[in-house]
Amino acid sequence: MSAGKRTPLHEASRLLSRVARGEAEAEVVIRNGILVNVHTGELLEHVDVAIAAGRIAYVGDAEHAIGSGTQIIDAAGRYICPGLLDGHMHVESTMLSVTEFAKAAMAKGTTGIFMDPHEIANVFGAEGVRLMHEEGQQLPLKVFTTFPSCVPATLDLEDAGARLGVEDISKGLAWDNVVGLGEVMNFPGVVYGDPVMLGEIEATIKSGKTVTGHFPSEDGRMLQAYLAAGVTSDHETVTREQGLQKLRMGMHLMIREGSAWHDVKEVIKVVTEDKVPTGNISLVTDDVSPQTLMEKGHLNHVVRRAMEEGVEPVTAIQMATVNVARYFKCEQDLGSIAPGRCADILLLDDLERMTPSTVLADGVVVYDQGQLRKECFPAFVYPPHIRQSMHVGRELAAEDFRLASRFDSTAAHVHVIRIIENSARTAKAAAELPVENGVILPDIRQDTIRLACIERHHGKGQVSLGFVQGFGITRGAVASTVAHDSHNLLVMGVDEQEMAFAANELVKIGGGMIVVEDGKVLAQVPMAIAGLMSEKSLPEVVSEVAGLEEAWKAIGCSLNAPYMTFSLVALPVIPEIRITNRGLADVTQFKLIEVERDTADGDRAD
Amino acid sequence: MSAGKRTPLHEASRLLSRVARGEAEAEVVIRNGILVNVHTGELLEHVDVAIAAGRIAYVGDAEHAIGSGTQIIDAAGRYICPGLLDGHMHVESTMLSVTEFAKAAMAKGTTGIFMDPHEIANVFGAEGVRLMHEEGQQLPLKVFTTFPSCVPATLDLEDAGARLGVEDISKGLAWDNVVGLGEVMNFPGVVYGDPVMLGEIEATIKSGKTVTGHFPSEDGRMLQAYLAAGVTSDHETVTREQGLQKLRMGMHLMIREGSAWHDVKEVIKVVTEDKVPTGNISLVTDDVSPQTLMEKGHLNHVVRRAMEEGVEPVTAIQMATVNVARYFKCEQDLGSIAPGRCADILLLDDLERMTPSTVLADGVVVYDQGQLRKECFPAFVYPPHIRQSMHVGRELAAEDFRLASRFDSTAAHVHVIRIIENSARTAKAAAELPVENGVILPDIRQDTIRLACIERHHGKGQVSLGFVQGFGITRGAVASTVAHDSHNLLVMGVDEQEMAFAANELVKIGGGMIVVEDGKVLAQVPMAIAGLMSEKSLPEVVSEVAGLEEAWKAIGCSLNAPYMTFSLVALPVIPEIRITNRGLADVTQFKLIEVERDTADGDRAD
Repeated sequence: MSAGKRTPLHEASRLLSRVARGEAEAEVVIRNGILVNVHTGELLEHVDVAIAAGRIAYVGDAEHAIGSGTQIIDAAGRYICPGLLDGHMHVESTMLSVTEFAKAAMAKGTTGIFMDPHEIANVFGAEGVRLMHEEGQQLPLKVFTTFPSCVPATLDLEDAGARLGVEDISKGLAWDNVVGLGEVMNFPGVVYGDPVMLGEIEATIKSGKTVTGHFPSEDGRMLQAYLAAGVTSDHETVTREQGLQKLRMGMHLMIREGSAWHDVKEVIKVVTEDKVPTGNISLVTDDVSPQTLMEKGHLNHVVRRAMEEGVEPVTAIQMATVNVARYFKCEQDLGSIAPGRCADILLLDDLERMTPSTVLADGVVVYDQGQLRKECFPAFVYPPHIRQSMHVGRELAAEDFRLASRFDSTAAHVHVIRIIENSARTAKAAAELPVENGVILPDIRQDTIRLACIERHHGKGQVSLGFVQGFGITRGAVASTVAHDSHNLLVMGVDEQEMAFAANELVKIGGGMIVVEDGKVLAQVPMAIAGLMSEKSLPEVVSEVAGLEEAWKAIGCSLNAPYMTFSLVALPVIPEIRITNRGLADVTQFKLIEVERDTADGDRAD
Repeated sequence: MSAGKRTPLHEASRLLSRVARGEAEAEVVIRNGILVNVHTGELLEHVDVAIAAGRIAYVGDAEHAIGSGTQIIDAAGRYICPGLLDGHMHVESTMLSVTEFAKAAMAKGTTGIFMDPHEIANVFGAEGVRLMHEEGQQLPLKVFTTFPSCVPATLDLEDAGARLGVEDISKGLAWDNVVGLGEVMNFPGVVYGDPVMLGEIEATIKSGKTVTGHFPSEDGRMLQAYLAAGVTSDHETVTREQGLQKLRMGMHLMIREGSAWHDVKEVIKVVTEDKVPTGNISLVTDDVSPQTLMEKGHLNHVVRRAMEEGVEPVTAIQMATVNVARYFKCEQDLGSIAPGRCADILLLDDLERMTPSTVLADGVVVYDQGQLRKECFPAFVYPPHIRQSMHVGRELAAEDFRLASRFDSTAAHVHVIRIIENSARTAKAAAELPVENGVILPDIRQDTIRLACIERHHGKGQVSLGFVQGFGITRGAVASTVAHDSHNLLVMGVDEQEMAFAANELVKIGGGMIVVEDGKVLAQVPMAIAGLMSEKSLPEVVSEVAGLEEAWKAIGCSLNAPYMTFSLVALPVIPEIRITNRGLADVTQFKLIEVERDTADGDRAD
């Protein structure tokens, strides 16, 4: 059964009533399990769940609902748990299509997501959002969308593939299952009254939907101003104190455990130590890499982490089910095992492992004892232009990557982006680099190599150049179209010929990530969908990414997950210095600067 | 400041941000109180609350928000508590207009109500609902309406002043501050698929609003069927077991403490003994008489009752503030002291008494130290036809109240309505009454007197007659236009001349309640608004009702609150037997029956 057949409550209610009263037989009855009741926080033994029209008709002793055509699922000794709901996540981070993500995540117990398709929005705008959303609508996974709010991330420093305004958001909010506004990252804009930000928030509130937030600052006055604008949640909290402060202000606290962010250990103390009521707290993943998804799981991993930190199992499950549904005003359809709700149900052998042995969506078994029912996941084919998103305008050549010195000297004093391992931040550093024939050269002894950002959305052929420090690369080149948030084509290397080769090869395969050396492709992860997502399955992508990591090592880089650090080098909203398609961006001053400094000591004042 | 000036969040947010950041001064700052934080369940000392544009701008140390124009309210030693929200109530029960009710209730700490104007709907349909709703919109009390769902209560047994269908409900749901569907009393209709009931529910869900319920049955299968239809709350729960069952099923449990219903003592045990999470529980009043309102208070009395039963004060307050707001999806505007919320705030000297010394609505002090600011409550004048709702069609005469015997005998065997003190139920009894000149006479030795129900909405002149037992009346007559749910004109007495006088006098004053004896009015409570609500203030109405009760005693009735029992004699949805304008209704068989039986033993089978 595909999601296309999902029955609205009002269409199902007559049948549900007849099943509850014993006048019609249930389609499915789950028998004799231990109910995880997220409403009362109880574990209730010997409970049956009767299902009809994909929804729950009766909870209790359902003997009277069993007929000759009823499918019986024996749950003896197992827990009957509502499917997990991820209240904030970006599917693009998994490098998978929504369909392939759904296959992987449902096997881990996730039955619903509230995704913010922010990355594709930066490439294809509202059309990209719509396509990912539509892909989600035909899946057994319940895919809700919060409409991306901050596209592009900055207006003055870069060019994304699209720009979304209040009108786009208003239109998107009218689509079925678009349940709110995606994380409002531009919190200074909100606080200082930016009309686009406030307009988007107003449109969302007027549509009765939810305004989700992103507030990484520790400034309490800014926080209250941000809340007064109508934003109601945050998933950027990293300390217990911030968490408690936000809860006191009525904010919905999303505690995040992604691949790069491990906030549960600290922030969950609001529950285990401050003992606040947990109804306004959710657990979310935000960004999960393919490896994490395969090895640790999805939201079930976050629930497990909360339990490991001392949260009662049912409380942890509440934070990944009913609390999420209530926050997004979907409580009548989702988040618990109760009459009328969609039958999105996990059967778990134990609560601590949080690994389902059986998963139902809309009353249909989609996963059982290690086997996914793949026929429940119809193929979704993106239109050709979405799968051909590389618009560089020409073949790149070595000379595109040569930065000329502004001065007649044998050395140049340059601003350098110094990356920091396992951090999204960068440091603004300085270096003296050799100049040969008027071209500033990299210097591997200083671990300082060439960096380029190429506009890839509108075929302008625009290339900006700079230098980056800290990757340890001594040969070859890398390129990526995952380059937050505008997702232009990012290239890095020692040799300009290798860089051109890496860029051209990546254009050929439609984007993704690549490592080359000596004119050969060492490894690549093709991401044909918008240059952001693969069309392959999770195991295939994990294998490709493993190969990519090996290739990074082969050319000298021994950092942890270097392709992730690389993908953030173009993000001009996190300090201190970045490269965009327009040039080098000083994020502390929020302006573009020359790569080459006037003197060793600094630049002229403008 | 009237509610007309209330500022939507999106219009206020720029100013709120500036106040929070110290760039603009607050209009009001409440200083140095003990904050009742309903989000975290904490009591936080030395807290200020800064207010601008009627909303909360900053909570904490608000020194930076104080300017030369800021009004300071010293809260030292006092609790700063969110205003109370009554999630289910009928203003009509107070016999007051919405305006006069608001004056009384706000002084007790109620700052918002979710009213179901079910009574006026039975008289004037959607127009009546609209008028009461509009009256509410100009008050400092926040008046939200749940649109009456079951008007009239029955289709085949009586005639109300109006009938509401799916189309009326759909239109009403589009009005600002109509937040849902009023208690869906016809639960068998819902469970058995009545298209009007299901249509109303569907319209409500589609509009994103809340379907409130009324489920007095103990049948668990019916309950689950009722829930699966989309109803999400109940306020008819009288036992702990029912309460726990409903909470387990995800139902929002409204625990009621009205004038006639005292459910807190028993049902609150789900909190004090079963220890369930309390986020899905509210405290409500449902029906409060003028005396209760004056003597015990309003929702503050219910909160106090919960505390008396052992609920922690902050938990009890949560059940009358944030939980209610969340259930009705108004949490962003109401229910807590947090940035952006409307500044509806109580200052309490102590939590146990729950008697505010100061009440703010939208940041304006409406009540302080016993003084109500009456200028905050503009007069609302109902149009003439609403204040002239008595359409009996003619002057009533003694002969209208004479029931002819169907047989030629000196005695008649009749069905009698036997009332039960302090109960809404009646018993179907039998009596043998004397017949004189073909007319069946009352018999005060059997405590059996005449009863009449006169159609008063469409001037049909229709009078139905019967007999009632148990009031103890030996002389005079009483009449009432408060006659649930159709609110026709109900008259009772020994002597038919007295009955005609009572009826005609009540018609003259536009409806209400009256007691007469010997052709004189002993007492009356005029209720010009639809024959249901007085135009006077609470103290005046309480005084009039006290006089009415004295008059009931004077004519022989010593029951507790007999006018309430009398007002239920015409309600054909509660067993066993009632009178309506169409005749005597046997509620167990759901049909009209003859008053006079064929024999002493029973009736012919039809």
